[in-house]
This record gives sequence, structure tokens and C-alpha cells, in this order.
Amino acid sequence: MSDQFISIYQSGEEQLLEKAVKDGAETMWDRKAAQKTPCGFGEKGVCCRICAMGPCRVSPVAGKGAQKGICGATADVIVARNYARMVAAGTAAHSDHARDIAHILHMASRDGNYKVRDEKKLMSLAKEWGVNTENRDIYEIAHEVAEIALNEFGKPFGTLKFLERAPELRQKVWEDLQIKPRAIDREIATILHSTHVGCTGDAESLVHMSMRTSLADGWGGSMIGTEFSDIIFGTPVPRETEANLGVLDEKQVNIILHGHEPSLSEMIVMASLDPEMQKLAKEVGAEGINLAGMCCTGNEVTMRHGVKIAGNFYQQEMAILTGAVEAIIVDVQCIFPALAKLSDCYHTKFITTSPKAKITGATHIEFHEDNAMESAKNIVKEAIENFKNRKNEKVFIPEIKSNAVVGYSVEAVIKQLDKVVNPHIDPMGTVKPLADVIKAGVLRGAVGIVGCNNPKSKHDYSHIEIMKKLIANDVIVVTTGCAAQAAAKAGLLTKDARKLAGQGLATVCELVDIPPVLHMGSCVDISRILTIVGEVAKHLGIDNSDLPVAGIAPEWMSEKAVAIATYVISSGIDTFLGITPPVTGSDEVVDILTNRVENMTGAKFFIEEDPHALADKVLGRIEEKRQKLGI
Amino acid sequence: MSDQFISIYQSGEEQLLEKAVKDGAETMWDRKAAQKTPCGFGEKGVCCRICAMGPCRVSPVAGKGAQKGICGATADVIVARNYARMVAAGTAAHSDHARDIAHILHMASRDGNYKVRDEKKLMSLAKEWGVNTENRDIYEIAHEVAEIALNEFGKPFGTLKFLERAPELRQKVWEDLQIKPRAIDREIATILHSTHVGCTGDAESLVHMSMRTSLADGWGGSMIGTEFSDIIFGTPVPRETEANLGVLDEKQVNIILHGHEPSLSEMIVMASLDPEMQKLAKEVGAEGINLAGMCCTGNEVTMRHGVKIAGNFYQQEMAILTGAVEAIIVDVQCIFPALAKLSDCYHTKFITTSPKAKITGATHIEFHEDNAMESAKNIVKEAIENFKNRKNEKVFIPEIKSNAVVGYSVEAVIKQLDKVVNPHIDPMGTVKPLADVIKAGVLRGAVGIVGCNNPKSKHDYSHIEIMKKLIANDVIVVTTGCAAQAAAKAGLLTKDARKLAGQGLATVCELVDIPPVLHMGSCVDISRILTIVGEVAKHLGIDNSDLPVAGIAPEWMSEKAVAIATYVISSGIDTFLGITPPVTGSDEVVDILTNRVENMTGAKFFIEEDPHALADKVLGRIEEKRQKLGI
Repeated sequence: MSDQFISIYQSGEEQLLEKAVKDGAETMWDRKAAQKTPCGFGEKGVCCRICAMGPCRVSPVAGKGAQKGICGATADVIVARNYARMVAAGTAAHSDHARDIAHILHMASRDGNYKVRDEKKLMSLAKEWGVNTENRDIYEIAHEVAEIALNEFGKPFGTLKFLERAPELRQKVWEDLQIKPRAIDREIATILHSTHVGCTGDAESLVHMSMRTSLADGWGGSMIGTEFSDIIFGTPVPRETEANLGVLDEKQVNIILHGHEPSLSEMIVMASLDPEMQKLAKEVGAEGINLAGMCCTGNEVTMRHGVKIAGNFYQQEMAILTGAVEAIIVDVQCIFPALAKLSDCYHTKFITTSPKAKITGATHIEFHEDNAMESAKNIVKEAIENFKNRKNEKVFIPEIKSNAVVGYSVEAVIKQLDKVVNPHIDPMGTVKPLADVIKAGVLRGAVGIVGCNNPKSKHDYSHIEIMKKLIANDVIVVTTGCAAQAAAKAGLLTKDARKLAGQGLATVCELVDIPPVLHMGSCVDISRILTIVGEVAKHLGIDNSDLPVAGIAPEWMSEKAVAIATYVISSGIDTFLGITPPVTGSDEVVDILTNRVENMTGAKFFIEEDPHALADKVLGRIEEKRQKLGI
Repeated sequence: MSDQFISIYQSGEEQLLEKAVKDGAETMWDRKAAQKTPCGFGEKGVCCRICAMGPCRVSPVAGKGAQKGICGATADVIVARNYARMVAAGTAAHSDHARDIAHILHMASRDGNYKVRDEKKLMSLAKEWGVNTENRDIYEIAHEVAEIALNEFGKPFGTLKFLERAPELRQKVWEDLQIKPRAIDREIATILHSTHVGCTGDAESLVHMSMRTSLADGWGGSMIGTEFSDIIFGTPVPRETEANLGVLDEKQVNIILHGHEPSLSEMIVMASLDPEMQKLAKEVGAEGINLAGMCCTGNEVTMRHGVKIAGNFYQQEMAILTGAVEAIIVDVQCIFPALAKLSDCYHTKFITTSPKAKITGATHIEFHEDNAMESAKNIVKEAIENFKNRKNEKVFIPEIKSNAVVGYSVEAVIKQLDKVVNPHIDPMGTVKPLADVIKAGVLRGAVGIVGCNNPKSKHDYSHIEIMKKLIANDVIVVTTGCAAQAAAKAGLLTKDARKLAGQGLATVCELVDIPPVLHMGSCVDISRILTIVGEVAKHLGIDNSDLPVAGIAPEWMSEKAVAIATYVISSGIDTFLGITPPVTGSDEVVDILTNRVENMTGAKFFIEEDPHALADKVLGRIEEKRQKLGI
């Protein structure tokens, strides 16, 4: 193993935590310690606060303690309702993000801040949705396509358009199960209704509805989020970047972009390149403006601009602890409210921008899409002007960073695959080469590793251990979200990392010229993974559930992750969770999710907190699938 | 006080609970006892299960114990997020109900099961929404109106149409606060998003968003629910009925209709009148089919057909304990899952009908609107055939029931008011007489008493004590939901009950020929109260918040009640809660809801668990409002 892969868990964490103590700064570890033992009822999912007759809590042990809530809801019902509501909230988060992106396409114009950057993708979507494209202005087409997308959130009739992208066999499964989602928001509202006091009192029915709601995320909100972001901001292509806190630069104005939606961050990227801003930075004594991304905003801007990655979810406090950040600019999701108080210990400005996510103690500069560039410049200016307040004696930037190649959209992957196509024999621009190497066994399978960080697990450890084990066993890994950033920091997104891969995968990586772990984007971009899996299945004339593929969320923590895991299962792809979800209070729910659901969707959940055991199970399941397929 | 009002709390409860012990039947009191002390964190709203880093719980005591969740969310943020999610779920329940009703109008036809029964109301709504009515078939108009309504749930642009029904001053308040809801489901999805981990971390912002979401209930889902139910099933007019468990009849097939949506219950009413069904009932040895309603389904069918009222939320188990119920037919909301097991102790069939609310252990006979009458007959048949299984030795029906007059839609109230209009001087068909008597002080004010039962409070006690005190003080009471059923059982919905009213109210009741407490319908029908309050305000050229009116939820328990209370406040009407909501863990949230919100909306929350003290506070606040108005 090359040296560059030895230090994968180093991010200066220890020094920064020591610095926190010295600086009197509170971190999540202080707060975790203050929580002491977490509530056992909550952990097992048997706490119910759905009506005001309670709160009720049910003993997860049969025959001991209260077996039901006051209304008669059993542990099974309470656990399943809580799970369904997690799916609803996760779906809402992705979908509400996507709605904003669709609105932005609807307001895009040739001379506006938001333009159509990928005309080809727009035209292809217009064709898919039956929008007339002949002799029409591209913006007229864009607006019509956007309006169709906006109606996907609330149309009174029919089911979601993107479902038709799935393999026919998969569509049939959904049809038979009656889980094709109608409008996206409708599924969210209706499952909240069904989990209201005195509605559904049946665990299986609740899981069933959860699957429908989650599909409105994967094949609805998330897919709209990805497709429309690509149309507006460009479909990612491979590009080089760097990752870890060492990307912060003592000599520059450091701006952290944190959150999720690209609408703000794209404008900040543009604004920071503006000569006026560059000049201003020089005037305050900085060498320039250094943008660094965090969480999915980081993924969006690194995929499309190569913006450096400061870190993932866990590192949001670490970044501020460096004392070198002029501003942390956030929009929505996964932003610690703690950043307000933490920023006060330093000169860092914590700037919230979305009316959907105001935080007490932050500087709120509302970002308005209809005045995007000016809004963005005002925000960047705020950061630049804060450079003078930096206290050099409080600055410590860990000198740790890794190289990475990012930008593997489905289109980019297919373009790479074209490298090994003999155009005299095979068509270009398809997933055939990937299907072929899987079928041949050169690659044993493909796995998506996604999701968050969670203090219940050592930071990034599970992500990286699992990735390493899988690629060593000739399983190609695609990754998004905080998992992708873990991979970037660990050097796994370099082409060199094929040294860690098994011989089959290493050969494929060399021929196709890719890393063994492919960064596919942000958490809404798991829709890219759905797309590529579906394309391979279609190519082979089989269903997703027949393929030797799997999804893993080793360190998940958010409701989005629960929605994702559920739509992945519902799409026929096994999902492995490295953090136990709050369902263990119900044997029935556990049995449905880890067993019975396989009879419905052809896939199921595996829960395994040990990363090595988890990787082994994934490998075992992949070989099982291969055997069934007879490959 | 006449004898008929003495026994208002008698419903045979004691005997039935004794019978339960004898019959080995479990009731909510057994389950409440098993719960022992409820979780203090949950009660105060400081328990957070929003992400899987936790669960976290924050000490509600400043400086003692954990003060923040792992992400840094304070008690203020946690409490406000939990509150916002209650509003979201309540809004979803009403709105998802309304969506179904709008779909039913969309499928209505001249020769179908569902027809247009109130053409006048349809035409008036068509006019309001700019639908062309000239030379068009009424069903063509109905379908267009329905489609507009269905788009209110998900339209990508604009705000809700019914907001324009509010007084202009109120619309201005909403405009200024930026809380005009866009599409109904969008508000539900977006607030779930904002309460996702790492989004809004500011209590005031969360309450603000909760107000917008709740308005999508009151002036969106609920109002659509009411208006469209009236169009399809007829606008209620005053009619006589009876209430309490004594309406069950030993000699007949007893069917309890429990739940919320009228689409099912209307068909059951029709099916039970069918000669074939009547004949079948005779064949099994019964004298006939006896329908009795419970909860809001009960309200829907009593308002439109005078169907007798078996009782309210609390009595759903009591009804089964009588041993005289052949079937309890339910659709959605407020149905104890416990009814499955309880029914097993008797011959009672517990029949679920909605895919949105399946319950383990129930007999599920899915009701299909497109085949409504046949579905309904199958369900009724199931009940009739069960008559033979009744065990007479297990039957005990408490001989307690009261007369009641129900059916006071806004139209019906105005029609009653016309009785005192001198048509030579004043226009007919307006709220002027009501406004006049309030202005003159003959009535001191008007109060809506609504909501559920809650085992934290003695059954119906708070409802009735408050009603009695208010009417004795010349405050007219309008009521819906389980509160209305409490009033019915207490005899307060009789014209005779004016004996309990103060002189002013008694005189008005006599002249206008109404009871002092008016049954306005089910919980979605609180929109009727919004309408009539708005009409009075408009007539006087003032805002809702200027009027001496208030809303009270003495025994609330559901998330719907939280949504309702919030839209009532947001509509400028003070709301008094008799059960403390889970917000007391945050001084800030309590301060916002019971104090600061008044500066925003002109109304605020009062929390008071003692019904007499609550009534006093209402009376005090009414006099305050009168004084400010100078009346």
C-alpha cells in the first residue's frame, strides 16, 4: 500500500479538539457527553409523541411493562409510524430542494444570472416529456419543461414521469405493489395523514406506504434535483480537486460553502471570480479568495467547478476551529445550529441565506434568486471585509489534504466507458462495457456508498474501511454525499488508488482511466446511481434486483438517509446500514425490513455496525446474486 | 336549571367500565395506567428524534443538565420544531381528507353514486373562481371547479384562492407577515424540510412557518373539505337528532360509523335505507338497521341526515363494550387501533375501509369510490349478518340519551337570522343581525368550542362547564367535532337550553329560534366558523382580531387540533387550550405563542387547564376586545 493511503483518517482532529478546549469553544463531543445515555425508548423507536394523550412509550420487551400506547398502538405500530415519518421528512428535504431548482429553470433567461448550460440534456428531457422543441427558443422549451417538473410536485392525476426510466420489470413490481407515487408532495402529505393518531395501525401497511413515499424522493424530487441542476449549471465531467481541511489557505480569504442547493453556491463561485471581488480581497491584504466546500454544497461545486473540499458533515465545526475561516455560508440541511455560538469564539461570520433555514445568532443575508449575483456579491463582500478581523494567533490549519478526481455523472461514466469500445463492433455511448465486465466477473459487482457522518461511529472509518475492502475484492464503488468526501480525503478518488483494487477492478480502472471509487455528486445525485443501475439492468434485460449491486450507508444520520435507503430497497437494490435505525423495538418491523420486504421488492435491509463484517456481507450477497444470475 | 341538564356527564361510563372488567376487555384506562408517569421530556417538548445522532433530550431547566442536542439545537429549537411538525401533520390530515372530497366531485355524475346536491353552492363557487357557467352542464362545471380545487394542493405559482374570502385587513396582515400559503401540500413538505436536521434553528422562524402551514389547513384543506362536502352531499340545515350511547337499539342491527370523511358514511347511510338491506335485517331477526355516528363521521351524517350520535372520541370503546354493536365501520383519523382487540371480546365486527388506515386485526373491506354503493352494501351486509352472533347476555346499553338540534351551516345560521330582519329596512341573507346584537352588547361575543377528548381531562367536563359559563354570560357558542357531541349529550343543542343562557342570549335564541350552542359540523367545518367570523368583521369594516370572539379547545389531543389552533390564531382569533401542549420546555416558544404572536396576528394562545378559570379568561378577553372597539 502506498504511503499516501496510510494517513486516511488524519484530519488534524486531535489538535483541533485540543485547540477548542484552549479557545473555550464547544464542540459536538461536549454536547454528546452532556447527553449522557441516550433514551432507550427513542433509540428503539418505541416512543410516541403523535398525540397529546401521551407521550407514550412502549416496552420493547414482550410481556414486560406497557405493551401499548393509550390509543392501543403497539410497538410495531409506533415504530413503523416513526419510521414512516422519517421517510416523509427525508423525502420532503430532497424534494423541496428540487422544487427550488425547477423554479430556477423556470426563471432562467439568456441574459439572466441563471442560464441553460446543458442544452443537450434539456432537449433530451424535453423529448422524453413530449415537449415540442422544433423552431422554439431554448428558453421557451426550458420554461415548459420546468413547469412540467413543477407540476410533478402536485399534479392531481397520474404517477411520476421519471418512473418510466426504470427497467420495465421494475415498473411492473411497483405496479403490482401499488407503490407508484402520485405527486411528490401528495405522498408526503398523505403519509403524514396516515401516521396521524387513529389512522394506520398496521406495520406492514406503513412500510408499504413508506416505500411509495420514498420513491417520490428517488424517482421524483432527487431525480429532478439532479437533472435540472445539470441543465442549469452543467453536467459534471471529471476534474481534479483537493480535499481536507488543509485546503484552507492562511494567505487568502477563506470562504466555506456549506449546505445543499447549488443555486446559491454557484452564484458564490461566480461572484468570487468577479474582478471587483478579487480586487477587494487584495485591498484587505489577502492574496485572493479561497472557496472550499462542505457537505453536499461542497459536492455540487466540486463536481462542476473543481472547488476544493474542506470536509464533510463532521468537519463543519473543525473548519471554524481553524480560526482561518472568514465566512461559512450556508443554505439548507445538515448545518449545526451550534455554528452560531462556535463562530462567536472566532472572527468567523456564520451567514445563513435561506428563509427555510434561519438560525438564531447567525448573520442572515437572504439570498434572492431573482437578484442572484448581487445577493452573492453582498455575501462574498461580507466575508472579504471580515479578513481584517482574523486573529493570526488563533489560526491553525492542519496541513493535510489529498488529491481527488471528481465529476462522474452518468454521462461522464459512459464517456469513459467509450474508451474501451471497439466502434466497429459495439455502439458508443452505452453501459455495455460495464455490463460486460460485471457479467464476465472481472468486476464482481458495483456498490453505492453514500450518506453522512455520525458521532456513533469513528469519523469516516466505516466509509473507508468498507470502500477499501470492496475495491480490493473487485467491486467498483460509486459514492455521493459525505461518503464521497471521506473517499476524497482518503485518496480513494485518485486514479492511483487502483493500487488498492483487486486485479480485475485495477485493470478496468486502467483501461477506462478512472479511479476505483467514483464521486457521483451530492445526496440528491443518488438518482444518478439509480439511473446507471437501471441502464445496466435494461441492457441485460433483467431487473435491478437481479444485479450484483448494493447500496451502503455506513455512517448515516439524517432522515434523508432513511428516505434514500427506502427508495433504494424499493428500487430492488439491497441496502446495508452501518448505524442501527430506531426500529429495533419492533420485531415485526425488523422482520419486514430485513426479510419480508425481499418478497415484495427483491431487495432488503441489512444492519451491521461493524464495517468489516458489513463489507463481508455485501460481498456474500453479491456472489449470491451472481450465482442466481448464473454469471 | 331544568332536570334535563343535570345528568350531562352520565353516559353509563361507570357501568361499562365495570362490564369491561367482567368481560376481560381492555380499555384506554388500563393502557393509561400501564404507561405510569409519562416522559417529562416528551411532555415538555424537549425530546428530539429528528436525526440518528440522537435521540437527544434537553433539560428544560436552564443551566442544569444537557442544554442542547448534539447538533446544537437548543430547547427553543427542539420545542419549536416538534410543534411545527404537529402543525404539518394536522394540516396533512385535514387536507388529505379534502383532496379525496375534491376527487369525488371530479368523478360526480348525474347517474353516478355521487351527485351535485347543492347546485347553488357550486354555482356560487364557480363564480368566485371565475369558472364559466353559462350554457354549461352542471357536471361540466363541477368537474372544472373540482380540478381547480385539486390544483390548490400542488399548484406551482400563486397563493391559495380561499384566502381572498378573509376580510381585507386580515389579508393585509398575512401579506405583511409573508404567511400566505402557496399550494397546500407544498407548505406541508416545506415545513418538514425546514424542520429536518440542520435547517431552521430559530424558534420564531419555526412558529412563523407553522402559521403559514396552518393557514393552508384552515383556508385550504379544511375549507375545501367543507365546501365540497356541501356541494356533493348537501349544505346542512337544522334538524333534530339524539345523542349518547342510549341511541343504540337492542332490537336493531346497530352500526357505528366512526372516522372522518363523508364519502364512505354517506354511502352507508344510503345503503342502510336500501329495501334489500332492510329486508335482510328483518331476515336475521332484527327490527331494522340502526346507524349511529361517532367522532366527525358522526358529525357529517348527523348534520346532513340527522343520524343519531352514539358519542365522541372517548366513547369509541364504550360503544363496543355495550355488546350491542354489530359493526363499527371506520375510515380515517382518531380510530383507536385498540378497537381490533376489543371487538374480539364481543361479536362486533371492526371494519376498516380506507387504504390510508388499515389496522392489524380488523376486517378490511376496502371502500372504492368508483363503486361506492356496492362497496357500501357489502359493508352493511357484513354488519347485518353479524346480528345472529350477538350474545344477549353480554348486552348492556346505558339508557341515556339527549335530544339535539344540529345542522347549523353558515347558510343555515343566516337563514335563522333572517327571522329578525325587517326586509323593508335591512337586506335579507346577511350576518347583520348577528353583528348588530354583538355591537349592541345583547350578545357579549361569540366563541367556538372545538376539539377532542383527552384522558388527561375528565370526559366532556371541560367542554360542558365552559359552554355553560359562556352562554350564561351572553356569549353565543358555536361548536364542532367532539366538543359538539359533548354539547349534544349535555342537552345544550336544544332550544330549551336557552334556559341556561343569560338574558341577552336567551332573547336572541328565542327570536332567532336557535339553541344557545350551535352545532356547525365536523373538525374540517371549523372553516365555517372562519367564514362567519370573517363575514361579521367585513360587515363591521374591521378585522377578525378586533371582534369579541375566541376559539377554545378544552380537551384537545390530536395534531389536527394543533394545526387548527394555529390557523385560528393566524386568522386573528384568540385560542384557549385546556390541555397544555408540549411546548413548556421552551420559555421562548411559550413567550412567542402566548405573547409575542399577538403583535403579529392580533391574537394569541392562552393555556389554562381549569375550565372555570379558562371561561373567566375568555370572558375577560372578550370584554377587553369590546372596550377597544368602543362597544
